[in-house]
Amino acid sequence: MSQLKWYFEDFEVGKTIAVGSCTVSEEEIIEFATKFDPQPFHVDKAAAAQSMYGGIIASGWHTCGMIMRLMVDGFLKEAASLGSPGVDEIRWLKPVRGGDTLTVTTTALESRPSGSRPDRGVITTSWEARNQHGELVATVKGMGMFQRRPKPANLE
Amino acid sequence: MSQLKWYFEDFEVGKTIAVGSCTVSEEEIIEFATKFDPQPFHVDKAAAAQSMYGGIIASGWHTCGMIMRLMVDGFLKEAASLGSPGVDEIRWLKPVRGGDTLTVTTTALESRPSGSRPDRGVITTSWEARNQHGELVATVKGMGMFQRRPKPANLE
Repeated sequence: MSQLKWYFEDFEVGKTIAVGSCTVSEEEIIEFATKFDPQPFHVDKAAAAQSMYGGIIASGWHTCGMIMRLMVDGFLKEAASLGSPGVDEIRWLKPVRGGDTLTVTTTALESRPSGSRPDRGVITTSWEARNQHGELVATVKGMGMFQRRPKPANLE
Repeated sequence: MSQLKWYFEDFEVGKTIAVGSCTVSEEEIIEFATKFDPQPFHVDKAAAAQSMYGGIIASGWHTCGMIMRLMVDGFLKEAASLGSPGVDEIRWLKPVRGGDTLTVTTTALESRPSGSRPDRGVITTSWEARNQHGELVATVKGMGMFQRRPKPANLE
Protein backbone atom coordinates (compact mmCIF):
# COMPACT_ATOMS: atom_id res chain seq x y z
CA MET A 1 0.00 0.00 0.00
CA SER A 2 1.39 3.41 -0.91
CA GLN A 3 1.96 5.89 1.90
CA LEU A 4 -0.60 8.65 2.34
CA LYS A 5 0.14 12.23 3.28
CA TRP A 6 -2.02 12.47 6.40
CA TYR A 7 -1.93 9.91 9.22
CA PHE A 8 -2.98 10.42 12.85
CA GLU A 9 0.50 11.71 13.78
CA ASP A 10 0.47 14.39 11.08
CA PHE A 11 -2.20 16.60 12.65
CA GLU A 12 -0.44 19.18 14.79
CA VAL A 13 -2.65 20.58 17.56
CA GLY A 14 -3.19 24.30 17.05
CA LYS A 15 -2.24 24.27 13.38
CA THR A 16 -4.73 25.71 10.87
CA ILE A 17 -5.00 24.27 7.36
CA ALA A 18 -6.50 26.35 4.53
CA VAL A 19 -8.84 23.82 2.97
CA GLY A 20 -10.21 25.59 -0.11
CA SER A 21 -13.11 27.60 -1.52
CA CYS A 22 -16.32 26.92 -3.43
CA THR A 23 -19.14 28.99 -4.89
CA VAL A 24 -22.77 27.86 -4.65
CA SER A 25 -25.61 28.85 -6.98
CA GLU A 26 -29.23 29.43 -6.01
CA GLU A 27 -30.16 26.52 -8.27
CA GLU A 28 -27.87 24.20 -6.27
CA ILE A 29 -29.33 25.51 -3.01
CA ILE A 30 -32.88 24.78 -4.20
CA GLU A 31 -31.88 21.37 -5.62
CA PHE A 32 -30.31 20.23 -2.32
CA ALA A 33 -33.18 21.55 -0.21
CA THR A 34 -35.85 20.05 -2.46
CA LYS A 35 -34.39 16.64 -1.58
CA PHE A 36 -33.36 17.11 2.03
CA ASP A 37 -34.83 20.25 3.62
CA PRO A 38 -37.83 21.59 1.65
CA GLN A 39 -38.73 24.43 4.01
CA PRO A 40 -40.14 27.48 2.16
CA PHE A 41 -37.11 29.74 2.79
CA HIS A 42 -34.87 27.09 1.13
CA VAL A 43 -36.99 26.18 -1.92
CA ASP A 44 -39.73 28.75 -2.64
CA LYS A 45 -38.48 32.09 -4.00
CA ALA A 46 -41.72 33.99 -3.33
CA ALA A 47 -42.16 32.62 0.20
CA ALA A 48 -38.45 33.17 0.95
CA ALA A 49 -38.72 36.81 -0.16
CA GLN A 50 -41.52 37.30 2.41
CA SER A 51 -39.60 35.49 5.18
CA MET A 52 -37.22 36.99 7.75
CA TYR A 53 -34.38 36.01 5.39
CA GLY A 54 -35.65 38.14 2.46
CA GLY A 55 -34.77 35.47 -0.10
CA ILE A 56 -33.63 31.88 -0.60
CA ILE A 57 -30.95 30.69 1.85
CA ALA A 58 -29.07 27.39 1.87
CA SER A 59 -30.07 24.59 4.22
CA GLY A 60 -27.52 24.40 7.00
CA TRP A 61 -27.05 20.74 6.04
CA HIS A 62 -26.12 21.86 2.54
CA THR A 63 -23.54 24.24 4.01
CA CYS A 64 -22.11 21.30 5.99
CA GLY A 65 -22.01 19.23 2.78
CA MET A 66 -20.15 21.99 0.93
CA ILE A 67 -17.63 22.26 3.78
CA MET A 68 -17.22 18.46 3.86
CA ARG A 69 -16.51 18.37 0.12
CA LEU A 70 -13.77 20.96 0.57
CA MET A 71 -12.33 18.87 3.44
CA VAL A 72 -12.18 15.79 1.21
CA ASP A 73 -10.61 17.64 -1.74
CA GLY A 74 -8.33 19.65 0.56
CA PHE A 75 -6.75 16.82 2.53
CA LEU A 76 -8.98 13.84 3.37
CA LYS A 77 -8.44 12.29 -0.08
CA GLU A 78 -4.75 11.98 0.88
CA ALA A 79 -5.48 10.90 4.47
CA ALA A 80 -5.75 7.52 6.18
CA SER A 81 -9.30 8.43 7.18
CA LEU A 82 -11.46 5.81 8.89
CA GLY A 83 -14.62 7.91 9.04
CA SER A 84 -16.04 9.91 11.91
CA PRO A 85 -17.83 9.08 15.16
CA GLY A 86 -19.63 12.42 15.08
CA VAL A 87 -19.64 16.16 15.50
CA ASP A 88 -19.68 18.10 18.77
CA GLU A 89 -21.19 21.38 17.63
CA ILE A 90 -22.47 23.15 14.52
CA ARG A 91 -23.35 26.83 14.46
CA TRP A 92 -25.08 28.37 11.44
CA LEU A 93 -24.18 32.01 12.02
CA LYS A 94 -25.13 33.84 8.81
CA PRO A 95 -27.31 32.87 5.84
CA VAL A 96 -25.57 31.38 2.77
CA ARG A 97 -27.16 32.61 -0.48
CA GLY A 98 -26.80 31.89 -4.19
CA GLY A 99 -23.55 33.31 -5.53
CA ASP A 100 -21.77 33.16 -2.17
CA THR A 101 -18.22 31.83 -2.08
CA LEU A 102 -17.24 29.90 1.04
CA THR A 103 -13.63 29.64 2.15
CA VAL A 104 -12.90 26.98 4.75
CA THR A 105 -10.14 26.38 7.29
CA THR A 106 -9.68 23.55 9.78
CA THR A 107 -7.67 23.67 13.01
CA ALA A 108 -6.72 20.58 15.03
CA LEU A 109 -7.93 21.06 18.62
CA GLU A 110 -7.05 17.71 20.18
CA SER A 111 -5.28 14.50 19.24
CA ARG A 112 -6.32 11.38 21.16
CA PRO A 113 -4.89 7.91 20.47
CA SER A 114 -7.48 5.14 20.73
CA GLY A 115 -7.41 3.36 24.08
CA SER A 116 -8.57 0.04 22.63
CA ARG A 117 -7.13 0.09 19.07
CA PRO A 118 -3.40 0.92 18.90
CA ASP A 119 -3.55 1.40 15.11
CA ARG A 120 -5.73 4.52 15.18
CA GLY A 121 -6.74 7.73 16.95
CA VAL A 122 -9.27 10.54 16.88
CA ILE A 123 -8.48 14.13 15.89
CA THR A 124 -10.93 16.82 17.04
CA THR A 125 -11.00 19.78 14.68
CA SER A 126 -12.60 23.20 14.43
CA TRP A 127 -13.91 24.05 10.95
CA GLU A 128 -14.63 27.64 9.97
CA ALA A 129 -16.44 28.76 6.80
CA ARG A 130 -16.34 32.43 5.78
CA ASN A 131 -18.15 34.10 2.90
CA GLN A 132 -16.68 36.48 0.30
CA HIS A 133 -17.15 39.38 2.74
CA GLY A 134 -14.99 37.66 5.36
CA GLU A 135 -18.02 36.95 7.55
CA LEU A 136 -18.03 33.69 9.52
CA VAL A 137 -21.11 31.82 8.24
CA ALA A 138 -20.70 28.41 9.90
CA THR A 139 -18.49 26.63 12.43
CA VAL A 140 -18.26 22.90 13.09
CA LYS A 141 -16.38 21.02 15.82
CA GLY A 142 -15.73 17.77 14.03
CA MET A 143 -14.06 14.49 14.87
CA GLY A 144 -12.13 12.29 12.50
CA MET A 145 -10.68 8.83 13.07
CA PHE A 146 -7.32 8.23 11.37
CA GLN A 147 -4.87 5.35 11.10
CA ARG A 148 -1.50 5.76 12.76
CA ARG A 149 1.47 6.00 10.41
CA PRO A 150 2.68 2.47 9.61
CA LYS A 151 5.98 1.50 11.25
CA PRO A 152 8.89 0.69 8.91
CA ALA A 153 8.97 -2.97 7.94
CA ASN A 154 10.57 -5.29 10.51
CA LEU A 155 14.03 -6.25 9.21
CA GLU A 156 14.41 -9.49 11.20
CA MET B 1 -52.22 34.13 7.37
CA SER B 2 -53.66 30.72 8.17
CA GLN B 3 -52.78 29.15 11.50
CA LEU B 4 -50.13 26.46 11.51
CA LYS B 5 -50.15 23.33 13.63
CA TRP B 6 -46.82 23.82 15.40
CA TYR B 7 -45.83 27.03 17.15
CA PHE B 8 -43.24 27.49 19.92
CA GLU B 9 -45.85 26.73 22.61
CA ASP B 10 -46.85 23.42 21.02
CA PHE B 11 -43.61 21.54 21.79
CA GLU B 12 -44.08 19.77 25.10
CA VAL B 13 -40.79 19.05 26.88
CA GLY B 14 -40.28 15.31 27.23
CA LYS B 15 -42.77 14.40 24.51
CA THR B 16 -41.55 12.16 21.65
CA ILE B 17 -42.96 12.55 18.14
CA ALA B 18 -42.73 9.67 15.63
CA VAL B 19 -41.51 11.54 12.57
CA GLY B 20 -41.51 8.90 9.82
CA SER B 21 -39.41 6.39 7.88
CA CYS B 22 -37.44 6.32 4.65
CA THR B 23 -35.41 3.75 2.72
CA VAL B 24 -32.14 4.66 1.01
CA SER B 25 -30.57 2.88 -1.96
CA GLU B 26 -26.85 2.35 -2.58
CA GLU B 27 -27.21 4.48 -5.72
CA GLU B 28 -28.53 7.39 -3.65
CA ILE B 29 -25.69 6.93 -1.13
CA ILE B 30 -23.09 7.08 -3.91
CA GLU B 31 -24.84 10.03 -5.62
CA PHE B 32 -24.86 12.13 -2.43
CA ALA B 33 -21.27 11.25 -1.52
CA THR B 34 -19.97 11.90 -5.04
CA LYS B 35 -21.12 15.51 -4.57
CA PHE B 36 -20.41 16.12 -0.90
CA ASP B 37 -18.18 13.44 0.66
CA PRO B 38 -16.29 11.42 -1.97
CA GLN B 39 -14.25 9.28 0.41
CA PRO B 40 -13.60 5.76 -0.95
CA PHE B 41 -15.88 3.97 1.55
CA HIS B 42 -18.79 6.19 0.39
CA VAL B 43 -18.32 6.09 -3.39
CA ASP B 44 -16.01 3.24 -4.53
CA LYS B 45 -17.51 -0.25 -4.19
CA ALA B 46 -14.19 -2.10 -4.54
CA ALA B 47 -12.32 0.15 -2.09
CA ALA B 48 -15.27 0.08 0.33
CA ALA B 49 -15.28 -3.74 0.25
CA GLN B 50 -11.62 -3.68 1.36
CA SER B 51 -12.21 -1.06 4.07
CA MET B 52 -13.11 -1.64 7.75
CA TYR B 53 -16.76 -1.16 6.70
CA GLY B 54 -16.79 -4.10 4.23
CA GLY B 55 -18.90 -2.17 1.70
CA ILE B 56 -20.36 1.21 0.78
CA ILE B 57 -21.75 3.20 3.71
CA ALA B 58 -23.64 6.49 3.67
CA SER B 59 -21.88 9.75 4.47
CA GLY B 60 -22.96 10.87 7.92
CA TRP B 61 -24.04 14.15 6.31
CA HIS B 62 -26.35 12.18 4.02
CA THR B 63 -27.85 10.46 7.07
CA CYS B 64 -28.45 13.91 8.59
CA GLY B 65 -30.08 15.03 5.32
CA MET B 66 -32.39 12.00 5.32
CA ILE B 67 -33.38 12.69 8.94
CA MET B 68 -33.95 16.38 8.15
CA ARG B 69 -36.25 15.50 5.25
CA LEU B 70 -38.33 13.31 7.56
CA MET B 71 -38.49 16.18 10.07
CA VAL B 72 -39.80 18.54 7.39
CA ASP B 73 -42.38 16.06 6.07
CA GLY B 74 -43.28 14.91 9.60
CA PHE B 75 -44.01 18.27 11.20
CA LEU B 76 -41.84 21.22 10.12
CA LYS B 77 -43.94 21.80 6.99
CA GLU B 78 -46.84 22.59 9.35
CA ALA B 79 -44.67 24.56 11.80
CA ALA B 80 -43.91 28.26 12.21
CA SER B 81 -40.22 27.42 11.73
CA LEU B 82 -37.71 30.28 11.53
CA GLY B 83 -34.67 28.09 10.84
CA SER B 84 -32.01 26.86 13.21
CA PRO B 85 -29.02 28.44 14.97
CA GLY B 86 -27.22 25.09 15.01
CA VAL B 87 -26.79 21.62 16.41
CA ASP B 88 -25.18 20.66 19.72
CA GLU B 89 -24.11 17.10 18.96
CA ILE B 90 -24.24 14.47 16.23
CA ARG B 91 -23.25 10.85 16.79
CA TRP B 92 -22.93 8.43 13.87
CA LEU B 93 -23.23 5.16 15.77
CA LYS B 94 -23.68 2.46 13.11
CA PRO B 95 -23.11 2.43 9.34
CA VAL B 96 -26.11 3.13 7.08
CA ARG B 97 -26.06 0.96 3.93
CA GLY B 98 -28.07 0.66 0.74
CA GLY B 99 -31.48 -0.87 1.40
CA ASP B 100 -31.58 0.32 5.02
CA THR B 101 -34.81 1.85 6.30
CA LEU B 102 -34.43 4.62 8.88
CA THR B 103 -37.19 5.42 11.34
CA VAL B 104 -36.87 8.72 13.16
CA THR B 105 -38.26 10.18 16.38
CA THR B 106 -37.75 13.60 17.95
CA THR B 107 -38.11 14.51 21.61
CA ALA B 108 -38.27 18.08 22.92
CA LEU B 109 -35.56 18.54 25.59
CA GLU B 110 -35.87 22.22 26.38
CA SER B 111 -38.10 25.17 25.48
CA ARG B 112 -36.50 28.62 25.79
CA PRO B 113 -38.32 31.85 24.90
CA SER B 114 -36.07 34.41 23.21
CA GLY B 115 -34.77 37.04 25.62
CA SER B 116 -34.58 39.75 22.95
CA ARG B 117 -37.45 38.83 20.56
CA PRO B 118 -40.79 38.22 22.29
CA ASP B 119 -42.31 36.74 19.12
CA ARG B 120 -40.13 33.60 19.07
CA GLY B 121 -38.24 30.95 21.02
CA VAL B 122 -35.82 28.06 20.62
CA ILE B 123 -36.73 24.39 21.11
CA THR B 124 -33.86 21.97 21.75
CA THR B 125 -34.65 18.48 20.52
CA SER B 126 -33.10 15.03 20.52
CA TRP B 127 -33.42 13.17 17.21
CA GLU B 128 -32.98 9.40 17.03
CA ALA B 129 -32.68 7.34 13.84
CA ARG B 130 -32.99 3.55 14.01
CA ASN B 131 -32.54 1.05 11.22
CA GLN B 132 -34.84 -1.85 10.28
CA HIS B 133 -33.15 -4.01 12.96
CA GLY B 134 -34.05 -1.49 15.68
CA GLU B 135 -30.40 -0.41 16.02
CA LEU B 136 -29.73 3.25 16.81
CA VAL B 137 -27.66 4.50 13.84
CA ALA B 138 -27.53 8.24 14.52
CA THR B 139 -28.50 10.80 17.15
CA VAL B 140 -28.66 14.58 16.80
CA LYS B 141 -29.24 17.23 19.44
CA GLY B 142 -30.83 19.92 17.31
CA MET B 143 -32.17 23.40 17.86
CA GLY B 144 -35.10 24.99 16.09
CA MET B 145 -36.36 28.56 16.27
CA PHE B 146 -40.15 28.90 16.15
CA GLN B 147 -42.65 31.74 16.20
CA ARG B 148 -44.90 32.02 19.23
CA ARG B 149 -48.58 31.34 18.60
CA PRO B 150 -50.24 34.58 17.49
CA LYS B 151 -52.53 36.17 20.07
CA PRO B 152 -56.22 36.50 19.18
CA ALA B 153 -57.00 39.75 17.35
CA ASN B 154 -57.44 42.78 19.61
CA LEU B 155 -61.17 43.52 19.76
CA GLU B 156 -60.91 47.20 20.77
